[in-house]
Amino acid sequence: MKINVGILGATGNVGQRFIQMLENHPMFELTALGASHRSAGKTYEDACYWYQTEAIPEDTAKKIVVPTEANHPEFENVDIVFSALPANLAQTIEPEFAKAGKLVFSNASAMRMEADVPLIITEVNHEHFKMLETQRDNRGYDGGIVTNPNCSTICSSITLKPIMDKFGLDLVNITTMQAISGAGYDGVPSMAILDNMIPYIGGEEEKMQTENLKILGNVENGQFKDGNFKIGVSCNRVPVIDGHTESIFVKTTEEAEIEEIKKAMDEFDPLKDFNLPSYAKPIVLRSENDRPQPRLDRNTGNGMSIVVGRVREDPIFTTKYTALEHNTIRGAAGASVLNAELYVKKYL
Amino acid sequence: MKINVGILGATGNVGQRFIQMLENHPMFELTALGASHRSAGKTYEDACYWYQTEAIPEDTAKKIVVPTEANHPEFENVDIVFSALPANLAQTIEPEFAKAGKLVFSNASAMRMEADVPLIITEVNHEHFKMLETQRDNRGYDGGIVTNPNCSTICSSITLKPIMDKFGLDLVNITTMQAISGAGYDGVPSMAILDNMIPYIGGEEEKMQTENLKILGNVENGQFKDGNFKIGVSCNRVPVIDGHTESIFVKTTEEAEIEEIKKAMDEFDPLKDFNLPSYAKPIVLRSENDRPQPRLDRNTGNGMSIVVGRVREDPIFTTKYTALEHNTIRGAAGASVLNAELYVKKYL
Amino acid sequence: MKINVGILGATGNVGQRFIQMLENHPMFELTALGASHRSAGKTYEDACYWYQTEAIPEDTAKKIVVPTEANHPEFENVDIVFSALPANLAQTIEPEFAKAGKLVFSNASAMRMEADVPLIITEVNHEHFKMLETQRDNRGYDGGIVTNPNCSTICSSITLKPIMDKFGLDLVNITTMQAISGAGYDGVPSMAILDNMIPYIGGEEEKMQTENLKILGNVENGQFKDGNFKIGVSCNRVPVIDGHTESIFVKTTEEAEIEEIKKAMDEFDPLKDFNLPSYAKPIVLRSENDRPQPRLDRNTGNGMSIVVGRVREDPIFTTKYTALEHNTIRGAAGASVLNAELYVKKYL
Amino acid sequence: MKINVGILGATGNVGQRFIQMLENHPMFELTALGASHRSAGKTYEDACYWYQTEAIPEDTAKKIVVPTEANHPEFENVDIVFSALPANLAQTIEPEFAKAGKLVFSNASAMRMEADVPLIITEVNHEHFKMLETQRDNRGYDGGIVTNPNCSTICSSITLKPIMDKFGLDLVNITTMQAISGAGYDGVPSMAILDNMIPYIGGEEEKMQTENLKILGNVENGQFKDGNFKIGVSCNRVPVIDGHTESIFVKTTEEAEIEEIKKAMDEFDPLKDFNLPSYAKPIVLRSENDRPQPRLDRNTGNGMSIVVGRVREDPIFTTKYTALEHNTIRGAAGASVLNAELYVKKYL
Repeated sequence: MKINVGILGATGNVGQRFIQMLENHPMFELTALGASHRSAGKTYEDACYWYQTEAIPEDTAKKIVVPTEANHPEFENVDIVFSALPANLAQTIEPEFAKAGKLVFSNASAMRMEADVPLIITEVNHEHFKMLETQRDNRGYDGGIVTNPNCSTICSSITLKPIMDKFGLDLVNITTMQAISGAGYDGVPSMAILDNMIPYIGGEEEKMQTENLKILGNVENGQFKDGNFKIGVSCNRVPVIDGHTESIFVKTTEEAEIEEIKKAMDEFDPLKDFNLPSYAKPIVLRSENDRPQPRLDRNTGNGMSIVVGRVREDPIFTTKYTALEHNTIRGAAGASVLNAELYVKKYL
Repeated sequence: MKINVGILGATGNVGQRFIQMLENHPMFELTALGASHRSAGKTYEDACYWYQTEAIPEDTAKKIVVPTEANHPEFENVDIVFSALPANLAQTIEPEFAKAGKLVFSNASAMRMEADVPLIITEVNHEHFKMLETQRDNRGYDGGIVTNPNCSTICSSITLKPIMDKFGLDLVNITTMQAISGAGYDGVPSMAILDNMIPYIGGEEEKMQTENLKILGNVENGQFKDGNFKIGVSCNRVPVIDGHTESIFVKTTEEAEIEEIKKAMDEFDPLKDFNLPSYAKPIVLRSENDRPQPRLDRNTGNGMSIVVGRVREDPIFTTKYTALEHNTIRGAAGASVLNAELYVKKYL
Repeated sequence: MKINVGILGATGNVGQRFIQMLENHPMFELTALGASHRSAGKTYEDACYWYQTEAIPEDTAKKIVVPTEANHPEFENVDIVFSALPANLAQTIEPEFAKAGKLVFSNASAMRMEADVPLIITEVNHEHFKMLETQRDNRGYDGGIVTNPNCSTICSSITLKPIMDKFGLDLVNITTMQAISGAGYDGVPSMAILDNMIPYIGGEEEKMQTENLKILGNVENGQFKDGNFKIGVSCNRVPVIDGHTESIFVKTTEEAEIEEIKKAMDEFDPLKDFNLPSYAKPIVLRSENDRPQPRLDRNTGNGMSIVVGRVREDPIFTTKYTALEHNTIRGAAGASVLNAELYVKKYL
Repeated sequence: MKINVGILGATGNVGQRFIQMLENHPMFELTALGASHRSAGKTYEDACYWYQTEAIPEDTAKKIVVPTEANHPEFENVDIVFSALPANLAQTIEPEFAKAGKLVFSNASAMRMEADVPLIITEVNHEHFKMLETQRDNRGYDGGIVTNPNCSTICSSITLKPIMDKFGLDLVNITTMQAISGAGYDGVPSMAILDNMIPYIGGEEEKMQTENLKILGNVENGQFKDGNFKIGVSCNRVPVIDGHTESIFVKTTEEAEIEEIKKAMDEFDPLKDFNLPSYAKPIVLRSENDRPQPRLDRNTGNGMSIVVGRVREDPIFTTKYTALEHNTIRGAAGASVLNAELYVKKYL
């Protein structure tokens, strides 16, 4: 029996990625497409400008879009909603769905840093799901809100996790080179980025710093406790369509050889036994000097693997490497869907 | 009276930039254009594919290209040559010109790390010119070889210098996002970089590490002594035509407020009294969040200023900022020409 | 004595080009900067996001922006206004300025095809200025409205004019490859155009067809009479920042050798004796196979020359060639300013 | 029983596409990978720089590359070879394979216009296969050489064919906007095409003119007879990775309504009953104003469909439209493979 699911914010770039990930999904049946009042009442294909390189799944194309209202009949038989809402709307709409008994798997930034909202990367900290109990107690939700982090956080957290587990983390320094799709379809004018790059993404550095600390930290006595390392970040936008690249420098607590670091990353495969439909090997190592590259490597593992290359020594930190993530799959829609898949298999 | 000068490797990308910088130069008269045997004997406009956005200077267009041979009559009355040769040719050709009594201002990497070859950024370490004496003693040159660093080194060294002078340097971490022109006209196929970036530039990280240490070090008793700080670098190629951008993280020896760092950079103007034709304010600070950007800012100070923005605190290092350099002007031809200008005015 | 001029819509992309063209202008003094109510009251540098590659002229940066109201005191001493307004605003605002006695040189499309509004490319059809009399009679204007065509029309009309004059025009077929700046700064999202092109620009084909016929036609008895040829157009957007390229196929009425066509274009220089500040040779021919190219050639003649190459025979039409225009200079702001310059020198 | 096949020129861009098209092919078994002597003896993954976005098929990665010699043992059991050789090598190597009894399906331009070599687009003119008999008679081949046209020819021929069949062709005018991959991986330097386009592709206009006439012509009495229409072409390179776009203008012999033209294209599906593995609907019509677009539509029909949009009237020709082709699949490797598939099913 499949679980009925819906999407909040179905017409935007991440919403479209949700639709692709949920097409023919073995566990979930996509039955409700929520979007703004401007789109509601139209068929999906009329309501959205579809800019993916594969066609709209046929069923979805003809489905009628409904408003993102928790009490709309279309959401009645839905147990899980995936949210691609902008932060300001997520703030009010997601709690309404949680109150109405829905499990909200949200890609929005609005609730991520709340003291009782788990911020989860499935492979890294699914134990934080237990904070849903605290959340329900606090807020009187029948359902609940589970967030996944900012796209650029996921790329770093996944690669840092096996290093932290084996050798401890002391210092982390990251410079990102992020794709334009991260800003949404209309987010970056072509005049702004052709033959150019932009050394700034509003709020991104703060998010990467706080989110990595929360994710790589613990839950103790119903409270989040930050990871015990320092992290500094510089974020940049480059003219790449999909695929965030990060230069990551790490100082471990214990000494580690480069080959040990690579082995730890390569062997990191914590959920392989759960048989999750959207799961791929979390980290794929490349040995070539000039990889990963976003255009060539972003679809590795159907876009769900982080591709890592150039693991090498650094004169200040102990190790540096380059990591690449498909930001709208692994870094957004795929992260939410994988969270939901594990939750259903292990925690429901 | 102008000094006659020549160019070695006049037809390539950096050679073309030399020609632009030497057009109507008040101190130098460009009289000899040296290039490969394939080009020699042709007019310059026939010998080169000119891909600058301004037309070839008319005089130069009709001038006959000669082979890069130190004893060629065309070089007889030349006192200074600017070298845009590839490293492998520079290795043998530059010493021949130095023996023949020419001062070689070289942009090539071949001789930069030699124990008696000064590696100079005019504003940063012109005192190293004195190593020319050692070089002449060692090698029996009548002329001499002066190198300027790799393009991406210049961007960092200039911005680090005023910080080092005021507050001392302890740790420096840099991630670069470098323009395609840095690899030469044919260096990066479009298939390799459209909708893409490449996390690797051969030899670049090593150069940036060793060169910054040499430049920001001292000359003591006829020997170079490295700067007393640690530096780690990660280099990337991005689809930008001209303009290297660098995310730079600095830990100073003494504590420094952000405003003090900015003031030190802004006031750094060591050669303003020399009235050098190619000189511009070395560091131009921008206050906007999203600057510098290569397409908008690379021509600041006729391409000779480093543009710095986003000077801010970092949780690990004390300070981080973004620096931008026009890599084929400030980072190549302009660096050599400025070295020659100061040398003539102050040391000749 | 300079004439005081103003700009309507001063903060947008074309408005910024107007400011650049009017900096230190020997005939015009820029005294009034009009923009939306949102911008009014701010200094120009605060009101606009300046995205040109040269800095804002200093005087202009500190000037206070005023609303685009014909009776605003700031416009009182202004005789000429240049309009970079969007079509819907131009429709109502430009007539108000014309009523208030101003000469409006407009880049907007709103009034171009009106039966009493001249649509002028200075070098091609300045005789159409005489329609201003009809316009004043019809509309009771003290001033008047002069429009210049759509950017892509200018590129074709200028190159067709000398051919028409010498050999007559029968058929014209054009496929354009237009730069993103033609759509305004926010007009083309980067997601829409990176690794892509768009075979459609709304209304552009119709404009090119009707405007070319009007411009290359005559004024007879106070009425416009279309040129006596057929024209078909296909318009495309390509990922180029500035510079529209057009593949143009022409069938002349009389037979013409390729060399004669080239000669006619090369000798076309009708206004050279007027000493107009913004004038450049209207057509610059290139002999290389692979020119013109937008990045290399768009600034020819300070962006005011059309660069033509590949003039050759065609099996169906008699001649085909490629033409390039800097769309925001020659194709927009420069076209208006040049119109005003000639009007003042010859018709005022 | 599968037929053993080989590839000549297996390491380049088109060679890589052949490998992708032949992976798990139900009719063909790829057993021989031929390349230059530099590559021969290495495993395929060591011999080539693989720059496709999917990984190298595993079997192929480990296969040893052999020299492209017709008598090499590796080719002994091979019946068909697909050639991605450069024209100059194809000229001598392909005949050797044909003499050795192989059927050569060649993407090279070398032999296309020979008087006894069929130039075939499977859906358009497979009847020309009968010229193989003449070829064998003339040349004493046991095998034979079948060519497919230049990439940009295929896009036009396929869309012109149904129009010609229904309404006759009188005049055809084409302006192309071609992807960089058409020039091979190293063909277009990024410095040449970023923020730019190039209005020239050497030999391309001539090829499109002669090839379209040959393909849309007949075979009569063992001779090719050109199609009875005129064609003129202008070719341009634009910064798109894969996907040639063409603005096509057509004058038919008989009058045709736009809707009739669209219907003819839409219904064109001549080989649907042959069940060919690489076959897709040859023409897919899009109704949106702004399609086809290369990034979004090039993979339609696994890259084997031509996508057509904007079919509309033209003031000079009767009809104009935009057509898009995946140039390295439909326009190269896919064209050869489809030719071979039909030949085996129908003519062998």
